[in-house]
Amino acid sequence: MKINVEKCAGILEKQDNILILCHAHPDGDTLGSGFALLRALQKLGKHVKLACSDEIPEKYKYLYDDILIQDFEEDFILAVDVATENLLGNLEEKYKGRVDLCIDHHGTNTNYAKKLLLNADAASACEVVLKIIKALGVDIDKKMADCLYTGITTDTGCFRYSNVTSNTYRCAAELIDKGADNGYINRLMFETKTKKFAALERLATRSMQFFENERICIITITTDMYKKTGTSEVDTEPLPSLTRQIEGVEIGLTIREKEDRTCKCSIRTYESVDASKLAGAFGGGGHKQAAACRFGCDVETAKKLLIDKCKELLK
Amino acid sequence: MKINVEKCAGILEKQDNILILCHAHPDGDTLGSGFALLRALQKLGKHVKLACSDEIPEKYKYLYDDILIQDFEEDFILAVDVATENLLGNLEEKYKGRVDLCIDHHGTNTNYAKKLLLNADAASACEVVLKIIKALGVDIDKKMADCLYTGITTDTGCFRYSNVTSNTYRCAAELIDKGADNGYINRLMFETKTKKFAALERLATRSMQFFENERICIITITTDMYKKTGTSEVDTEPLPSLTRQIEGVEIGLTIREKEDRTCKCSIRTYESVDASKLAGAFGGGGHKQAAACRFGCDVETAKKLLIDKCKELLK
Repeated sequence: MKINVEKCAGILEKQDNILILCHAHPDGDTLGSGFALLRALQKLGKHVKLACSDEIPEKYKYLYDDILIQDFEEDFILAVDVATENLLGNLEEKYKGRVDLCIDHHGTNTNYAKKLLLNADAASACEVVLKIIKALGVDIDKKMADCLYTGITTDTGCFRYSNVTSNTYRCAAELIDKGADNGYINRLMFETKTKKFAALERLATRSMQFFENERICIITITTDMYKKTGTSEVDTEPLPSLTRQIEGVEIGLTIREKEDRTCKCSIRTYESVDASKLAGAFGGGGHKQAAACRFGCDVETAKKLLIDKCKELLK
Repeated sequence: MKINVEKCAGILEKQDNILILCHAHPDGDTLGSGFALLRALQKLGKHVKLACSDEIPEKYKYLYDDILIQDFEEDFILAVDVATENLLGNLEEKYKGRVDLCIDHHGTNTNYAKKLLLNADAASACEVVLKIIKALGVDIDKKMADCLYTGITTDTGCFRYSNVTSNTYRCAAELIDKGADNGYINRLMFETKTKKFAALERLATRSMQFFENERICIITITTDMYKKTGTSEVDTEPLPSLTRQIEGVEIGLTIREKEDRTCKCSIRTYESVDASKLAGAFGGGGHKQAAACRFGCDVETAKKLLIDKCKELLK
């Protein structure tokens, strides 16, 4: 059942012993939402803890480094920024069908929770969480502000994407006034590359190939490149955006080789081509401008299949 | 003489036949400020034109493509985002000592104009211009909003740098409500690379060298690289930021070779080292975290001089 912000705050006010679930491969928005809410609810004297199927990357440590860990039996399950149950990763088995409340901003949310607060116009879940914390009457402290600002800036590519509205900027302004350390957070999230990632990025850009009058750009990441640079697949997340940055490119493909020689492709497009359609042709899926699919074949074969399909879509 | 926003608006209200001067090598902030003010003052029925010593890069075309060009003899000279007279480039000779009013946000402004409106806390000159236009009582239209948003986003690296305040975000929100096309502008300014720039960037990252336990990172751009990629010195502006992005790097140096085999160095640092001090040792200057200097010697000699000085500063 869909509910509004006031109703959502009302439900949370009545609960204690709350478990907050973040999505697998956690990002700034699910973690920022989760830890901000945990802080707000603990301030109201409630027992709250947070769980995530995957390890939280080191760079997000400032979101939770001072949090009091509470041990209790959960009565209420709250999912944040989790569009579908299978995004819970290995926590899905335990919590499937058991989520009491979900707070989200994905238009694709499958309505799996008993109650759903969905604001599909928000660029980040943290914008929704900010409203809830205010409705709960909790004063936003510096650490909460850092959490919420982190989710907003990471889900918008530092206020760059077209999902950013004037409300996104107003939320950011409010959080800075509450003490959010915007300069530090953006430097950490967007300006700092590890040396091994910089080395991988160098190999990735060197691998760039162009097709169809340079309307298609392909980056290929081999397992050999991981070995050479000491990286692994988890380090490749920022690479797909490189393909689409070249002037004139309409389809950017990043093909990642797996240990078993099969591969995976991340697709980025602009308005002229629907990325989810291209991914769909190979059993994958995603959004209009960002999608992905897997191949049971080697990189070179996948590349040929992809180029052929791209040619069709570019016509 | 330093004046405030109201006084500034009062002066402009009394003028007609206004020439607006932008700084040489124009960027989004000087152009956004200039064209937004031109539009506002033309709306008030005044004669206004704009001049800049250098050609305006193609990507800024949307700032002025619909502007009515007026021909008249100027009575009043207004400089925007111009910290010192020599930044007027080849217009300096004609307008030295003749600037009636300067609107700026650089703390280093030399107070060369008869009247100065300086707001050193603003992240961009456009934030100051927004206040002036409001004080003039002009309703901000979509094109003005695009101009002002452009200056704000370019001078803050898309809201990334630590000069961004809550007021910066509030200005952005206001401009989006007035019609600024934030998604389009950010894509154009930050997401699009020409193919020749991408090729130069590839060579630049390949040239990276590290010194002093990787606390110094040096990029070298040779005239040969320009030839190979069809680029020139003007294309190198985004490269210095690459050096500082590597984890652990405290000083990033980008050395650009000139046709006569002498060279120029752009310096980027974090808190531990003062960039203007390093540049100053070689007769250059700049800010605490971004500065530059020239060398009358070849790249390799300059590199040695720079590394020696860096070692001293890193102690």
